[in-house]
Amino acid sequence: MQALVFENQLELRGDYPDPLAVHGESVVRVALAGICGTDLEIARGYMSFKGIPGHEFVGRVVETHNAELRGKRVVGEINAGCGTCRECEHGMARHCATRTVLGIVGRNGAFADYLRLPDRNLIAVPDSLPDEMAVFVEPIAAAYEIFEQLSLDRDKSIVILGDGRLGALVAMAFKAEGYEPLVAGHHRDKLERLGELQIKITEEFALNGKFDVVVDCTGQGVGFQRAIDIVKPRGTIVLKSTAAAGAQLNLAPVVINEITVQGSRCGRFAPALEALVAGRIDPRPLIDRTFTLSDGLRAIEAAAEPFHFKILLKPS
Amino acid sequence: MQALVFENQLELRGDYPDPLAVHGESVVRVALAGICGTDLEIARGYMSFKGIPGHEFVGRVVETHNAELRGKRVVGEINAGCGTCRECEHGMARHCATRTVLGIVGRNGAFADYLRLPDRNLIAVPDSLPDEMAVFVEPIAAAYEIFEQLSLDRDKSIVILGDGRLGALVAMAFKAEGYEPLVAGHHRDKLERLGELQIKITEEFALNGKFDVVVDCTGQGVGFQRAIDIVKPRGTIVLKSTAAAGAQLNLAPVVINEITVQGSRCGRFAPALEALVAGRIDPRPLIDRTFTLSDGLRAIEAAAEPFHFKILLKPS
Repeated sequence: MQALVFENQLELRGDYPDPLAVHGESVVRVALAGICGTDLEIARGYMSFKGIPGHEFVGRVVETHNAELRGKRVVGEINAGCGTCRECEHGMARHCATRTVLGIVGRNGAFADYLRLPDRNLIAVPDSLPDEMAVFVEPIAAAYEIFEQLSLDRDKSIVILGDGRLGALVAMAFKAEGYEPLVAGHHRDKLERLGELQIKITEEFALNGKFDVVVDCTGQGVGFQRAIDIVKPRGTIVLKSTAAAGAQLNLAPVVINEITVQGSRCGRFAPALEALVAGRIDPRPLIDRTFTLSDGLRAIEAAAEPFHFKILLKPS
Repeated sequence: MQALVFENQLELRGDYPDPLAVHGESVVRVALAGICGTDLEIARGYMSFKGIPGHEFVGRVVETHNAELRGKRVVGEINAGCGTCRECEHGMARHCATRTVLGIVGRNGAFADYLRLPDRNLIAVPDSLPDEMAVFVEPIAAAYEIFEQLSLDRDKSIVILGDGRLGALVAMAFKAEGYEPLVAGHHRDKLERLGELQIKITEEFALNGKFDVVVDCTGQGVGFQRAIDIVKPRGTIVLKSTAAAGAQLNLAPVVINEITVQGSRCGRFAPALEALVAGRIDPRPLIDRTFTLSDGLRAIEAAAEPFHFKILLKPS
């Protein structure tokens, strides 16, 4: 099959072996895949992953031992847990210590004609939901994870730092759930596109106000320090950026002002899928362009452009 | 009056002007005061405070315009808010932006014969509670603040990093409320004293296990990094140490493992007072020695000894 493969660099290959269905795992033909920041880090060699990247997808089950899944259009939870540890038994495969993660840790991903995932990870998608929306279930689930972790009154003042793809989806999720988020970013074009979706925007990154909730989607170490500066006493900072590694921080205000810092990563698919099906959130305005998989290397380049929100890949 | 005063260095003075009762504020004759880490930082000139330090006390109201307070034995909330801002209106004077703080920010403290506090900060103490217990209300309130911030099941595994005075009181508070905390520290003598109170102890700071809740009472930047290393996925880190300033940290695990970090400082006095009066917590085994105020400089030196838990000061 055709696939983007990272070994020492990212390359397009036409002869990659097809995955085969095994007991408990099914093969999905990828209909559409999304490129996210983690994929770009893999493509740059910043992570230790080798293989096919890609973890945002919608596709159709083409080979399976599970009769209920045969022929179904599906999306898939990306964390494949061992199934037996304490985390897995509590429905927390996302935190299984020995998990594989689609296109990220020890498991080939979605930038290919086919992928394989455990049957229990696959979730059927209603016919009414177009591929262009369903492909966003994974990153929207990551955004909705915030609501699973925190109980926030609707009148809270909320600012999202960063106008990238994650910041945009987090803003849309807050908006969809009845909040009035403010997105603070540097990229006028992208901010204006969010403004057209009735999301409040500002180019003023050094905000003067104080906010109940600050969501760091900057992907940069400076985001957390900025969040500390603008959160109210007893307020909440949501850390969505893993790129805060090694930051030089003054944490004293976190103690003195009794800030809550909530690390937040992947989420359950169900709330995201429900919001998409109900029409509360429509991420399609974020799509900049769809490339064929054979044009995948150019697609990755396009996804790295700071003026783009979302690049999709379509196996031919 | 006699007082310990910090200007450029800490000194004992016998001629310091007595505070006078003003509208809304009463004068308390200090019966007993406790020395805490913040006082030691002030004595070393690490903070910008000038004046009389000390914020843990019990005493008797000797001058007041408030008939209800006259002659009462009291403890006192140390944060004096403006009384009109949003935080103060919501009972959060502890987070008023223009607050003064007894012996810490813009207000003379308890290492003196007399102190002055707003009437609304003073809380009468039942006769049944001896001074040696009442003097601990403030630091125990800081420990109980954890239970105000977090709802933790009794079966959670809890480790407290640091066997200092704060770590000891946090451990006693957890124990008093039905938890089984483990204290990890470096000082065998102090750990053994905690062990005699049926608190689990370990000298192994580099703990191998993973814990649901890690409370950093180390007072050192390294404590937070250690907490990140040993907290379970989706676990909670409580930051009690303000000395984490400028730490070089890898925060990626906070995001990946969806850790909650809770900054925690002062607490309401009521729950602490209730626990003391009910006998659920008795901090007297932590008292190493009581010095007279005239011997205050030696008392401060004794409080800085790492093998001591708590040094008290008694105006003569």
